[in-house]
Amino acid sequence: MKSSPAFDEDFRSSLAALLAWRRDVREFRSDPIPHQLLGRLLEQAARAPSVGNSQPSRFVIVRSAERRRALVAHVDAEQLAAGSGYASEKKARYLRLKLHGLAECPVVIAMYCARDPAEGAGLGRQTMPETLVYSTVCAIHTLWLAARAEGIGLGWVSILDPATVSGLLDISQNWHFVGLLCLGYPRSEDDLPALHTQEGQQRMRAETMVIER
Amino acid sequence: MKSSPAFDEDFRSSLAALLAWRRDVREFRSDPIPHQLLGRLLEQAARAPSVGNSQPSRFVIVRSAERRRALVAHVDAEQLAAGSGYASEKKARYLRLKLHGLAECPVVIAMYCARDPAEGAGLGRQTMPETLVYSTVCAIHTLWLAARAEGIGLGWVSILDPATVSGLLDISQNWHFVGLLCLGYPRSEDDLPALHTQEGQQRMRAETMVIER
Repeated sequence: MKSSPAFDEDFRSSLAALLAWRRDVREFRSDPIPHQLLGRLLEQAARAPSVGNSQPSRFVIVRSAERRRALVAHVDAEQLAAGSGYASEKKARYLRLKLHGLAECPVVIAMYCARDPAEGAGLGRQTMPETLVYSTVCAIHTLWLAARAEGIGLGWVSILDPATVSGLLDISQNWHFVGLLCLGYPRSEDDLPALHTQEGQQRMRAETMVIER
Repeated sequence: MKSSPAFDEDFRSSLAALLAWRRDVREFRSDPIPHQLLGRLLEQAARAPSVGNSQPSRFVIVRSAERRRALVAHVDAEQLAAGSGYASEKKARYLRLKLHGLAECPVVIAMYCARDPAEGAGLGRQTMPETLVYSTVCAIHTLWLAARAEGIGLGWVSILDPATVSGLLDISQNWHFVGLLCLGYPRSEDDLPALHTQEGQQRMRAETMVIER
């Protein structure tokens, strides 16, 4: 393709629905994700924008049932610890929230960022080295959207200790942990995110997030 | 809408084109972005995923011509400094690269992340507080895609000193700088990113970025 594609109103309206509907999914059906489909999704995520074309994202697919069980035990323990700071009523509500689908989702991926990738020769990240990790966040978001367009939900698990996860997965210090992802077909299709319905949270009006200078 | 929309093959193929074509744009036409359109884009970006629904992204639209000139001068100086470490041949190539369109793009937005937003009550970010900033990166990537679907290009400028930029824009310490964005209609529609054509960079094969555990 030699020139940029044009996008029409139909596409934009579906894209808006995708952006509004991607959700953080915590309840999965057990149906597997077809191997080729997962490959295509990872390919799209690998093409996400990266600072100076450094392409630092690394995808660790957790195949071992034993490693997965250890991850679930670790995350459950961290979530319990995180809830212990809340007052009793809030704590009871927190403990009822289902915060991850790690045990039952068909695919678990730990996302890492190479700390000093050869690609890109360091261009663009000298003053803000954190842009390397931001590139991996863009890859996660790309995977999220591409997956949802295939009817596959993603849940991003962050209540965990990165060093413990890297130890459980035997990942070297050269890779920086960014997020633990659950992928699979969602069990339900709620029209509101769980935190909105269960915790009464509202969406901020966009105007309140914008200032001028 | 009570149930999740279904996405068809046509949509997925356009989405794949959007993800492949978003580009980091550095050459802009001077045509303005219509006010209402910019508002819609910011609204979509504001709905990006955020940890525990914390909605920490803050959009600083740079309206002052004087402030914009100061930003351009700062970024140009930082880019010169970044190039000084390269050996002579590489340095000459680096200095020829157009790295930003800050001076001529119709809209400049500095992206910030609130350090301790009230929304979300801290849920999900106790063990990995950096997920707040990751939420703002998702907002930037959302803006990037929504803009490109309207034919508008985005360029993410990161060769700068965050504290200097916050000083120039008079932004408080409560907000953490994430990225400086140029928005506008692109001048050209190259089929390859500038770094691929001018620096001979290649795309990595996705398989080389995936491991199993």
